[in-house]
Amino acid sequence: MKHLIDKAEVLIEALPYIRRFFDKTVVIKYGGSAMADEDLRASFAVDVVLLKYVGLRPVVVHGGGPQIATTLERYGKESKFVDGLRVTDDETMEVVEMVLGGRVNREIVALVQRGGGAAVGLTGSDGDMIRVSRRIGKSGDLGRVGRIVGVDPASIEAVIAGGFVPVIAPIGVDEQGVTHNVNADEAAGAVAGALAAEKLILLTDVEGILDEAGSLIRHLAGEDAARLVEAGTIREGMIPKARCAIEALKQGVRSAHVIDGRTRHAILLEMFTDGGVGTLITR
Amino acid sequence: MKHLIDKAEVLIEALPYIRRFFDKTVVIKYGGSAMADEDLRASFAVDVVLLKYVGLRPVVVHGGGPQIATTLERYGKESKFVDGLRVTDDETMEVVEMVLGGRVNREIVALVQRGGGAAVGLTGSDGDMIRVSRRIGKSGDLGRVGRIVGVDPASIEAVIAGGFVPVIAPIGVDEQGVTHNVNADEAAGAVAGALAAEKLILLTDVEGILDEAGSLIRHLAGEDAARLVEAGTIREGMIPKARCAIEALKQGVRSAHVIDGRTRHAILLEMFTDGGVGTLITR
Amino acid sequence: MKHLIDKAEVLIEALPYIRRFFDKTVVIKYGGSAMADEDLRASFAVDVVLLKYVGLRPVVVHGGGPQIATTLERYGKESKFVDGLRVTDDETMEVVEMVLGGRVNREIVALVQRGGGAAVGLTGSDGDMIRVSRRIGKSGDLGRVGRIVGVDPASIEAVIAGGFVPVIAPIGVDEQGVTHNVNADEAAGAVAGALAAEKLILLTDVEGILDEAGSLIRHLAGEDAARLVEAGTIREGMIPKARCAIEALKQGVRSAHVIDGRTRHAILLEMFTDGGVGTLITR
Amino acid sequence: MKHLIDKAEVLIEALPYIRRFFDKTVVIKYGGSAMADEDLRASFAVDVVLLKYVGLRPVVVHGGGPQIATTLERYGKESKFVDGLRVTDDETMEVVEMVLGGRVNREIVALVQRGGGAAVGLTGSDGDMIRVSRRIGKSGDLGRVGRIVGVDPASIEAVIAGGFVPVIAPIGVDEQGVTHNVNADEAAGAVAGALAAEKLILLTDVEGILDEAGSLIRHLAGEDAARLVEAGTIREGMIPKARCAIEALKQGVRSAHVIDGRTRHAILLEMFTDGGVGTLITR
Amino acid sequence: MKHLIDKAEVLIEALPYIRRFFDKTVVIKYGGSAMADEDLRASFAVDVVLLKYVGLRPVVVHGGGPQIATTLERYGKESKFVDGLRVTDDETMEVVEMVLGGRVNREIVALVQRGGGAAVGLTGSDGDMIRVSRRIGKSGDLGRVGRIVGVDPASIEAVIAGGFVPVIAPIGVDEQGVTHNVNADEAAGAVAGALAAEKLILLTDVEGILDEAGSLIRHLAGEDAARLVEAGTIREGMIPKARCAIEALKQGVRSAHVIDGRTRHAILLEMFTDGGVGTLITR
Amino acid sequence: MKHLIDKAEVLIEALPYIRRFFDKTVVIKYGGSAMADEDLRASFAVDVVLLKYVGLRPVVVHGGGPQIATTLERYGKESKFVDGLRVTDDETMEVVEMVLGGRVNREIVALVQRGGGAAVGLTGSDGDMIRVSRRIGKSGDLGRVGRIVGVDPASIEAVIAGGFVPVIAPIGVDEQGVTHNVNADEAAGAVAGALAAEKLILLTDVEGILDEAGSLIRHLAGEDAARLVEAGTIREGMIPKARCAIEALKQGVRSAHVIDGRTRHAILLEMFTDGGVGTLITR
Repeated sequence: MKHLIDKAEVLIEALPYIRRFFDKTVVIKYGGSAMADEDLRASFAVDVVLLKYVGLRPVVVHGGGPQIATTLERYGKESKFVDGLRVTDDETMEVVEMVLGGRVNREIVALVQRGGGAAVGLTGSDGDMIRVSRRIGKSGDLGRVGRIVGVDPASIEAVIAGGFVPVIAPIGVDEQGVTHNVNADEAAGAVAGALAAEKLILLTDVEGILDEAGSLIRHLAGEDAARLVEAGTIREGMIPKARCAIEALKQGVRSAHVIDGRTRHAILLEMFTDGGVGTLITR
Repeated sequence: MKHLIDKAEVLIEALPYIRRFFDKTVVIKYGGSAMADEDLRASFAVDVVLLKYVGLRPVVVHGGGPQIATTLERYGKESKFVDGLRVTDDETMEVVEMVLGGRVNREIVALVQRGGGAAVGLTGSDGDMIRVSRRIGKSGDLGRVGRIVGVDPASIEAVIAGGFVPVIAPIGVDEQGVTHNVNADEAAGAVAGALAAEKLILLTDVEGILDEAGSLIRHLAGEDAARLVEAGTIREGMIPKARCAIEALKQGVRSAHVIDGRTRHAILLEMFTDGGVGTLITR
Repeated sequence: MKHLIDKAEVLIEALPYIRRFFDKTVVIKYGGSAMADEDLRASFAVDVVLLKYVGLRPVVVHGGGPQIATTLERYGKESKFVDGLRVTDDETMEVVEMVLGGRVNREIVALVQRGGGAAVGLTGSDGDMIRVSRRIGKSGDLGRVGRIVGVDPASIEAVIAGGFVPVIAPIGVDEQGVTHNVNADEAAGAVAGALAAEKLILLTDVEGILDEAGSLIRHLAGEDAARLVEAGTIREGMIPKARCAIEALKQGVRSAHVIDGRTRHAILLEMFTDGGVGTLITR
Repeated sequence: MKHLIDKAEVLIEALPYIRRFFDKTVVIKYGGSAMADEDLRASFAVDVVLLKYVGLRPVVVHGGGPQIATTLERYGKESKFVDGLRVTDDETMEVVEMVLGGRVNREIVALVQRGGGAAVGLTGSDGDMIRVSRRIGKSGDLGRVGRIVGVDPASIEAVIAGGFVPVIAPIGVDEQGVTHNVNADEAAGAVAGALAAEKLILLTDVEGILDEAGSLIRHLAGEDAARLVEAGTIREGMIPKARCAIEALKQGVRSAHVIDGRTRHAILLEMFTDGGVGTLITR
Repeated sequence: MKHLIDKAEVLIEALPYIRRFFDKTVVIKYGGSAMADEDLRASFAVDVVLLKYVGLRPVVVHGGGPQIATTLERYGKESKFVDGLRVTDDETMEVVEMVLGGRVNREIVALVQRGGGAAVGLTGSDGDMIRVSRRIGKSGDLGRVGRIVGVDPASIEAVIAGGFVPVIAPIGVDEQGVTHNVNADEAAGAVAGALAAEKLILLTDVEGILDEAGSLIRHLAGEDAARLVEAGTIREGMIPKARCAIEALKQGVRSAHVIDGRTRHAILLEMFTDGGVGTLITR
Repeated sequence: MKHLIDKAEVLIEALPYIRRFFDKTVVIKYGGSAMADEDLRASFAVDVVLLKYVGLRPVVVHGGGPQIATTLERYGKESKFVDGLRVTDDETMEVVEMVLGGRVNREIVALVQRGGGAAVGLTGSDGDMIRVSRRIGKSGDLGRVGRIVGVDPASIEAVIAGGFVPVIAPIGVDEQGVTHNVNADEAAGAVAGALAAEKLILLTDVEGILDEAGSLIRHLAGEDAARLVEAGTIREGMIPKARCAIEALKQGVRSAHVIDGRTRHAILLEMFTDGGVGTLITR
């Protein structure tokens, strides 16, 4: 009986958070180990479904770099990178769309549904959702790589209104309707901004944002985060994530969280415990 | 971290129950030790608030026998009982209404609000909610004691629609609008029936319904419960509770639970764990 | 037939007022003789029900000083007054709540329902409706006496939306949820302000506000009323009523009426005849 | 003051009727003296507006025989009658439509608006409202005279939904969209049926339905009315009115009233006093 | 088959216009040859119905000068003109109302319904729609001729909300509810302004607005139109139409069209082809 | 001008069809030449957008056999057929999902959007839309090939409610959430049934259903179609299409159309001209 009561206490501890976030939108950037490891995948799915059932509106935006690389390889198509960005010719873009929209997105929809939720997959080109202009690299043309210039949330909202969890593949469309590859972190940030989300949660493969001594920074004001980025204090791989968090806060998102996707139930822990498990960035 | 993940697992374990009961009405008969002990009171309040926040519609019906007895004593008013029912003359009824509607009901509203919920107290005479005819005892007149003949749930539904937890004092009105004392268990059952509730939970001061050997019966079909009542197998004090559970099931309530209110978080344990903590009666 | 036609003419005379007040909220402070005399009580009830049926939204706020005094006496509890305000210790407050919420409020709900309406009783602590800070007397502590700092009308609006007449007992809650005694006139004024009522009607035991010569003042601008209060021209007992009328006008109520509750159907006469029957205070 | 209180009592006496008819539809056939006499016209208008404001949904259907006759005369157009029905050739029909839709209907709309209401005039051809087949007289062709075969209430309901009192001219359309003259009583009855009205009120120039001795029959069951019609006991001019009342009751109208339009405020008297002022026919 | 495909192409060509005007209001001033010629009448009706079915909200405002003249003549009533405006005494006004509201309006309602639509006829006095003050001529009293001072669109909107095409006769009411004759072009412009219409279409008996050389001006900015009116360059008969177009644009209408009602399907051509068929005036 | 008027006449000719199909759902099976030829693709897109704008609710279900074959080839994956059905092992299914959901579906969404519409792509696994059981071939296991057992239209309806054209890839899920390949014709028929569609349109590469003499059958009752299928009279390739049309009619679809997708604007021609362009099958 003692054991059972302890369980109830955990539910009770979560109550203030459940109340605070009731009816709020949470955009989750899903990727990395949390997407690769079978056990973590299942843990992610139930986390999302739980958010839904305790009254939040979770929205999932995913990446798919590794799956794209594997498939390109299988096709015998060589990958070329300029300034760290994949040069995306038409043939590559075809593979990107097939892998993101036809495989990764579908797997996540299936995952959430196995976890007990009802999900609908969307691609950034549905309803002209993610609008881009072509990104010009410093050292030459990158092909169909886009910079997000706007997000029309109508298709996402239709899916939420139907009671579903939207799962979004990061594809952008330019004014001519031509699809482009977009960075998934950036897409998650822009979607969170367009939905006026309460939270943007970025699942990563590190503990969070680390200081120079390598210790986790638990809480950071948006402007301090900006200063760290400029000062180059932040680990390089973290910079795009920090930038998109900062940008999302500017667009009205209440808080951004960089958390460790290698931890089971990282999302629940971040949302429903005081300490949280990563770095919280607030306005 | 391990500790935190265990906590998340508890939330996850509750998920199937949260999903199953989403948007369902649960009527809780509140009384006994759960109402007398300070610690149990607080535990009851957060349980109710949690139900609200994970998407259920809790409705509280309370009794108040001990408080009535104390106040009558303070007034120097002697209590008379016939067939185990308090003879309720007009003066007594005035005290009953003051204590139930003006004290017990108010304390429970305050309790739920301290627990983080928003509550509104109702009395069975609000909106002519609980309709009664006068109950005639076998051995003579009982005064203003009512037998419930119907429940108009409109006032309860108005309060729920406003986002509040209704807390209901068991007073009935007859056709002339005269108030009567009604049994709180019976009131809870009739309210559950009128609201087509998913569950009726009766908080008691015993483990649940016991068999002849004194062991807890975990699960009972409604008709078996009826047979036990007739056979006189059930402990006497439990008979009215069993009867009102059986009656509520007949009126369309999905299940009735007789649980041990002396256990902290008994409601959550009954609703969100497989074993439960008392006797479950189903149709 | 002539007699019948005269009756119809009366209905017709009321028409312009019915049209003007259609769908408007009217807060009525109920107390004094209108609450004590059986005949006046019945007349009050049908007045309220008629307002409801011709399309207004009546809200009743009541006091209960005499009933509290009687009950305290019965308990052998001595009343202490400081600066004209009852010192309210915990024991006294318990009686105040029982009498206001469990007796007076219930009687008015029953009264309105006997008059043909559907009513729901509320207490200022329902849904944390009437918020107070502790009022400190000039000559020492008054105990649980509150000064109103805000009114959350959500619970009142839920009850109105359900089609009921709300009947409100003047209890306030502080930030810790502790209940306090509040002045009923003040409560009525604050409720009228929070509901952006069209009218605040104060039923008193005098003709209205009198001038120095003792003649009834029929119409008064809010600022003139304020000047009279400051000049001390107004009879002392009327000062709190005048003050709460002035305050309500400041909070957006369109007009306040101090009328003679000893007259049968005083509310209808004030609302549906040109002359009215008391003092009208407008912005 | 006594006088004022008497007035309030009249309002109070009307209360049970106001409650009973709240939100109900009342179709009034308007014609005869009530339409000819200036004073009665004004009394009719305020009656209709009062009905509206105390929560009913009045619908006016009017005739216009005398005005048609006058205009035809002015045109030098001779009227021909067959079986007591006006033979309606195309030229006559043109006058009928102009007088009913362009004059009588407009005057009633203006009348109601001067009385304080908002009205919209409709003709039975708006939205193909009143559908007719051509009525064949016993002794030959009557021209464009229609027998009502159905009523589509959509246009009436649109006008009510907009908050207006519909005022309807009795014109019918056949399947080809050709307009026909229809009897106004019959139109009122059919409209009442299609709207599932609570009441059909026929304003006439007699006291009501009289028995053989010439005394007013106060109350009549529908089947008894039918028997009187068949037995020929009813005065001839009253037969079409009785027939349309009987028909309306069959189509679901709750009661039909044949009242004396020469009495001021006849509608209010019939609706808001016990005795009423004419003959009430019920199912 | 080629022929069929050509047909489909026409539908396709209309698509961008259908999309642009979706859910927009179009007010059409109907009169002149388009109302006199049987073939053009039928073409007008289907145009209006098509607008309705491809998602617009057409509103028809009509005149009726010739019909009024004919009827007055038939009555032997001489017409008197002052400053080009018909002097409208009470007898004349009675004819005006009968002809406009009881004949012309009814014919147009029937016309639209034969074309497959559902229409409801309104007069400017319904719901006090078109408000006027009396227009004083330069050379003396004109009688009941009104200058529009405001339009209350509530009755029009009720009819649209019911799914009907409103057909409006140009009658105005002054503050006393007295009806006045108003210019139909002016009425159409004021109605378009009050409805915040997308377009005002004036059907005329000329090609459009002509320049000094007599050539059609295809497009005109509102201010240029104003300049032409002042300079007297525009043909006299066109001046009131130009003025009401300019006024409507000022009140927020997006564009005004003066088109040739002698062309079959002129409305469709103007709305669904690039060139259009008359003069387009834009802000 | 004559040319323009002819254009307007075409719009007018379409009017009766537009009216008849207003607010109705039309499911279009898209495939074959209409999907392969650039010109036909554009014609298809504007047809769909036009349907949307004239008030219908088009839903597109597509196939993708050729694209799947090409991609499998590129992967060096050999295709195996049993009983004419592709044996679908896990690796094949991965390609099927990528091609259908990530390429073909995306191209059609882009196509409709370039045509001026707003589209959202769905896969039969979104919201567990298309439910299947595993199809067992006569001559052995076919792998992940499904037989449709039900369609949950909730996700389709959410997308329509948001104002979008749903474009659906024919993937099914079994009870374990495992995706299966389903026949696109069958999917279109089942979707039409679940949406209670007005029409099911099957775009094919033949004129329609031919009789034994090879002539086009213009109209066929459902039962006659069934007889032809059984008699083997119908060309083999047409049998599955005929079967799914028959099945859809049974599930409540009003009519099914087998039309020639090689004709430009075949959909518009079939819907908006009397003769139509293929075979119409009705209940």
